[in-house]
Amino acid sequence: MPNLPPMPSLPAWEWMQKYQSQYLLGDITAGIVVTSLLIPQSMAYALLAGLPPQVGLYASIVPAIAYPLFGTSKVLAVGPVAVSSLMVAAAIAKLAPQGTEAYLTLALTIAFLVGAIAVVMGILRMGFLVNFLSRAVISGFISGALIIVIVSQLDHLLGLGVPTTTSFIETLIKTLSLITHINRTTAILGLGSVAILLYFNQPLVNQLKQLDWSEAQILPISKGAPLLVVILGTLITFSLQLDQTQAVEIVGAIPAGLSGLTMPIFDQETWLSLLSAALAIAIVGYMEGFAGGQAIATKRMEKIDPNQELIAFGIANISAAFSGGYPVTGAVSRSMVSFSAGANTGLASMITGVFAIITLLFFTSWFYFLPQTCLAAIIIMAVYKLIDFATLKRMWNYDKADAIAWIATFVAVLLWDVQAGIILGAMIAIALHLYRTSQPHIAIVGRMGDSADFRDILRHEVKTNPQILAIRIDANLYFANAQYVQNFINQAISDRPDDQPEVTSILLVCSAINFIDTSALEMLESLIATFKSLNINFYFSEVKSSVMDKLEPIGFVDLVGRDRFFLSTDLAMRELSK
Amino acid sequence: MPNLPPMPSLPAWEWMQKYQSQYLLGDITAGIVVTSLLIPQSMAYALLAGLPPQVGLYASIVPAIAYPLFGTSKVLAVGPVAVSSLMVAAAIAKLAPQGTEAYLTLALTIAFLVGAIAVVMGILRMGFLVNFLSRAVISGFISGALIIVIVSQLDHLLGLGVPTTTSFIETLIKTLSLITHINRTTAILGLGSVAILLYFNQPLVNQLKQLDWSEAQILPISKGAPLLVVILGTLITFSLQLDQTQAVEIVGAIPAGLSGLTMPIFDQETWLSLLSAALAIAIVGYMEGFAGGQAIATKRMEKIDPNQELIAFGIANISAAFSGGYPVTGAVSRSMVSFSAGANTGLASMITGVFAIITLLFFTSWFYFLPQTCLAAIIIMAVYKLIDFATLKRMWNYDKADAIAWIATFVAVLLWDVQAGIILGAMIAIALHLYRTSQPHIAIVGRMGDSADFRDILRHEVKTNPQILAIRIDANLYFANAQYVQNFINQAISDRPDDQPEVTSILLVCSAINFIDTSALEMLESLIATFKSLNINFYFSEVKSSVMDKLEPIGFVDLVGRDRFFLSTDLAMRELSK
Repeated sequence: MPNLPPMPSLPAWEWMQKYQSQYLLGDITAGIVVTSLLIPQSMAYALLAGLPPQVGLYASIVPAIAYPLFGTSKVLAVGPVAVSSLMVAAAIAKLAPQGTEAYLTLALTIAFLVGAIAVVMGILRMGFLVNFLSRAVISGFISGALIIVIVSQLDHLLGLGVPTTTSFIETLIKTLSLITHINRTTAILGLGSVAILLYFNQPLVNQLKQLDWSEAQILPISKGAPLLVVILGTLITFSLQLDQTQAVEIVGAIPAGLSGLTMPIFDQETWLSLLSAALAIAIVGYMEGFAGGQAIATKRMEKIDPNQELIAFGIANISAAFSGGYPVTGAVSRSMVSFSAGANTGLASMITGVFAIITLLFFTSWFYFLPQTCLAAIIIMAVYKLIDFATLKRMWNYDKADAIAWIATFVAVLLWDVQAGIILGAMIAIALHLYRTSQPHIAIVGRMGDSADFRDILRHEVKTNPQILAIRIDANLYFANAQYVQNFINQAISDRPDDQPEVTSILLVCSAINFIDTSALEMLESLIATFKSLNINFYFSEVKSSVMDKLEPIGFVDLVGRDRFFLSTDLAMRELSK
Repeated sequence: MPNLPPMPSLPAWEWMQKYQSQYLLGDITAGIVVTSLLIPQSMAYALLAGLPPQVGLYASIVPAIAYPLFGTSKVLAVGPVAVSSLMVAAAIAKLAPQGTEAYLTLALTIAFLVGAIAVVMGILRMGFLVNFLSRAVISGFISGALIIVIVSQLDHLLGLGVPTTTSFIETLIKTLSLITHINRTTAILGLGSVAILLYFNQPLVNQLKQLDWSEAQILPISKGAPLLVVILGTLITFSLQLDQTQAVEIVGAIPAGLSGLTMPIFDQETWLSLLSAALAIAIVGYMEGFAGGQAIATKRMEKIDPNQELIAFGIANISAAFSGGYPVTGAVSRSMVSFSAGANTGLASMITGVFAIITLLFFTSWFYFLPQTCLAAIIIMAVYKLIDFATLKRMWNYDKADAIAWIATFVAVLLWDVQAGIILGAMIAIALHLYRTSQPHIAIVGRMGDSADFRDILRHEVKTNPQILAIRIDANLYFANAQYVQNFINQAISDRPDDQPEVTSILLVCSAINFIDTSALEMLESLIATFKSLNINFYFSEVKSSVMDKLEPIGFVDLVGRDRFFLSTDLAMRELSK
């Protein structure tokens, strides 16, 4: 039989073939528990994105079924999330008014672009690019974005009637100035919802634990709180007709049935106007989902492939674009719940998709009287814990550069712009990193006693030969630090006190150098030439074989002199001291 | 007597106080030799910038006198240079037509902005920022810029009459299509000038050496070639009336006398439109001058201070703005000539300034018949050697990343835009660097024989303990590589063949780690927590004291367990193998 061509990469193939009946209970339980979170959250996040609630449900179907076919993380729950929703609103608000057909189509289009960017990056194996956003930038960005989310929800939670603006500061000022105009009934419903969510989150769990309930029994109850809030809020509003008598804002009519096939706009001008937003949503969304997927994969001793994840994330978003949705990603909190509820395979995610279909087919009318304040409470309680000042404080104590990047991103997101904030943050983090590596640790070293060890003369009692300057550079040599290294060596020679004998040899200890780029190579060559004219010779010790392999063919080894490279510093110092 | 406040930083104070009469001969000789180069070059570069020739002379006076007062490099020759002139033309051409008063004022203003940016950067000690441009980017940029310069000069050299455009490609096409329309007399004058310059540059020097002339005698003659070309070209054109009879373009009337005080524009809108160009000119100009200054300072065993140099460079440009000039910097070639001619102090530079004054006061009428083709020949011969394909070839062999950055910058400068090119190049160089450091070398290590040395299991015959995974990471841990390191460790555990005993301990050998940023710290914490739940313990060896000093207060050492840090890998392996 001839060899068959390799199967196209469909990670689901593996878990589907190996599916065992004992997986089923866990997958179904997880599917149900996550659904009870997903239905209210997805509608709430759609409203946050300026979209009708059913769009959140649409975005919870095909992506949740498509992702597990292509993704390498088995229990990631893909669907609408808070940060992406906010970014969608920020991107589209400038281009079309909320509630119009154009707004809806732009949301589809941005999902398509997010998906296309991710698929292309995944195929080109550019998953590494997302590593250029540091934890500090992501944390500062998410914290800033979620503060915007919470402030925007205060309006619904308290029934203030704040006019929509695109500036956070304006929204904040208007919210504060209207704070005396709260709708009392709305506020009671909203704050009551908050109280229920808070109670179910921890106190109830603790009480049930004391009653010896198992984790498996507690979890569905604890995580069912949002659904309970939705049901209670709807029943109260319906029975007391609060929408009529107290002007409580309700979700209203949600069209029953599925969205059918939808088409994003294929138009160069529209694409260009959405491109930078799509890029930002793709990167932030992917990182959020990947971080969640990886945390769980590590716990399950599984591997996830960054580039395959990019492709799966991209396909999920493209599928959202053609099924009436908007940008989606792996939701960290829902994924953790899925994992805790015993999800074993991607089937759990697919089950949530099926439940979303059932909800759309049969239950949309049940949400007519659902008060918006309940959804606001659900959003606020879902996101407030992710605002991460603790990380900032820790960074401040551990690493000021990271703290500065955090603050810069956070402030830029709040005061300037959601997208601009993350770009600025990334640039600052990279600049600070380059600055740090541009001033590497360099030590003048001497011999420890009679050993073969050489250590920093500033930290240890060591013996030196005054005519030989042994310098260890604890960094790779590249363009950003070549100048610093050159200055250090020049200074070490020119600052020499007059009463010391003149230096005749410089020994560069290269034990920590993994690569030398061309800028640094030229710096070394010019240093060597200059010192040669002053009768000071250059020697090298402990050059790694990978570095030597590159220096050899370029002629550097011959230029310096082959006998001037020593395997160990000990050997070099013995030889040069003769 | 009470302590006096410290003197303001005026580096000239030192050399002026210590001035010795034996310095004088060298300074005067260098001043005269450099002047003979400076006068024709400064006029030629002004024309290149789209400015009247006298502006080049104005820019050779006050900056050449001001720089040595504030700079730390004693023999840098500051004045107009080719690359800055081209960048000025590219920046202003879009805003005002050549030959207008507005064009002149914009040139003053850009010099002022360049100076202000440099002074502010110097005071804020931001000299390190220029290190973010790698040698590859600078070399690619200068090569691209100088090709533009040379192509633009072909017009004058051959008398083609190419209409001015702002696009290099357009200029190139028009130049090539007009190549049959050369003005023969102009071409003969121009190519004759090139021949003289070529002959004086090397063949004459070799001949004089064979006649046993000394370097000191040869230098003024060899470097006087541009002045000779100017004199010869002028005399021939004047005596044969070539401007009238053969339509040879001449410099024409240059107003005699100094410029007097000039004022740049202080207007927000103008400043904003010039800001990015000024920033690029400041950075490129500073780097060019600093590189020249440093090369000579190293030869003279002197130190130069990058931040003080920025301030001096800035003051030179501000002084140019108020004295009728345009952006200046340290000219590498003229500085090397000054050094070779025996310059000892900044007095040499001041003398060239005085000669420029004398030229403007008494000799401007002498340049009336100077043919532009001679100036074009001088420019071309001054810059062609700086086009650096040799560096590109070398980078291609040594370091592809640098070669890519070189090519990207070069192509962007030629095909897109001079300013955009350098920004794009810098971004590509930084991205490639981050990519390289995002995939650090990581080795699983084992014991060499019975020694205390641990080496890469892939490169050496070593003994390992199958239950202990000893991993050495040869890089600092930070956001761009944290993910890669995490993947490596996860993979090393999950790829373990089934027939091997299970790993119970992971030992991280930290001998090459100089810092761990917050992203990497969180990665380590999450790895440790995850593996703890799998009953795999984490240990550390050879953590540097500077890293330990930061891990201690943040609680990381206590989290891991103080007894899990070992001073040496040898000790750790002995202890864990018990």
